[in-house]
Amino acid sequence: MTARPRTTKDDVVKAAGKLFSERGFHGTSMRDLGGVLGLEGSSLYAHITGKDQLLLEVISRGAAMFQGLADEVLSSQDPPDVKLRSLIHGHVLIVVDHIDEARTFLNEARFLPEPQRTRVLELRRRYQDAYEEVIRRGMAAGLWRQHPPQLMAIFILSVLNALDRWYRPQGLRSPQDLAVDIYEFVTGGLS
Amino acid sequence: MTARPRTTKDDVVKAAGKLFSERGFHGTSMRDLGGVLGLEGSSLYAHITGKDQLLLEVISRGAAMFQGLADEVLSSQDPPDVKLRSLIHGHVLIVVDHIDEARTFLNEARFLPEPQRTRVLELRRRYQDAYEEVIRRGMAAGLWRQHPPQLMAIFILSVLNALDRWYRPQGLRSPQDLAVDIYEFVTGGLS
Repeated sequence: MTARPRTTKDDVVKAAGKLFSERGFHGTSMRDLGGVLGLEGSSLYAHITGKDQLLLEVISRGAAMFQGLADEVLSSQDPPDVKLRSLIHGHVLIVVDHIDEARTFLNEARFLPEPQRTRVLELRRRYQDAYEEVIRRGMAAGLWRQHPPQLMAIFILSVLNALDRWYRPQGLRSPQDLAVDIYEFVTGGLS
Repeated sequence: MTARPRTTKDDVVKAAGKLFSERGFHGTSMRDLGGVLGLEGSSLYAHITGKDQLLLEVISRGAAMFQGLADEVLSSQDPPDVKLRSLIHGHVLIVVDHIDEARTFLNEARFLPEPQRTRVLELRRRYQDAYEEVIRRGMAAGLWRQHPPQLMAIFILSVLNALDRWYRPQGLRSPQDLAVDIYEFVTGGLS
């Protein structure tokens, strides 16, 4: 028998993210988490103070990935259409590679206690602002017609944020293909 | 003092829908529901057997509205672009007028016990099929370019299903304006 490796805080946060993602925050108990990790209550609490803290940790990881993408794209010298393509491509990859953190960031933030809830909603708002900024510049450059940029950003993020509900990376469409499909849809629609 | 009107089953289902919509199924307890209605446990259980049954009742109401819309539009003699416009318009109005049932149908069905869960997922699938059918006919009629109809239906429903997260009917855009915005976005994108 090999010695069982010690459970790290990272293991605990990852397992919590998987449970929040599958069952929702309110559908997950600390007992469920202990069961998945094979830990008793007291060993769990060596790593974290409770469910609220775990939710914040998982959501912070999701938020950091999306914000990192937005910062990188906004600071590039690419024209707006390439920037929009990069945002969409990057978003699809985050959802595919980090489904639990992405889904928890997008769906469970409303269950955070204050002031964390407000702070995370601000991060989501900043992420949306990146799309709005790129769209506004693309319209100013004559790439796209004049539409309310905020509404367009919301529509595009609606398509992106629904991915976790239906997309299966092991299916026929690769993440790269899917990113192209989404870019074409949001720039050209059915036409 | 006037006599307090008797709480009907309809009152109970409506109150449950509001709680599920705001707090999620797992975030709602029978005690919360009793508190909102001013009823003790035993009076509540005169109307229903428990939370699962309430979830099914709320979701069934949501499902019936969306399916009624799809049936009506599909059986009309309108051309595909008018049909798509009617689907989008009808969907926006359902979300605006029946936010709790719509949101619970869209977000909480995964928490139903089997076999109800599978049956509701089939209803959602049938609703998506209506969009797919209209899109396919529109492509065949040369109204829109050839794209995978299923993917297009998913993208359009992603925009529609996100409405409850951000749209406030008391804001500047009326539901009618919003339906036009969505139709233009899904048929023409940013271009």
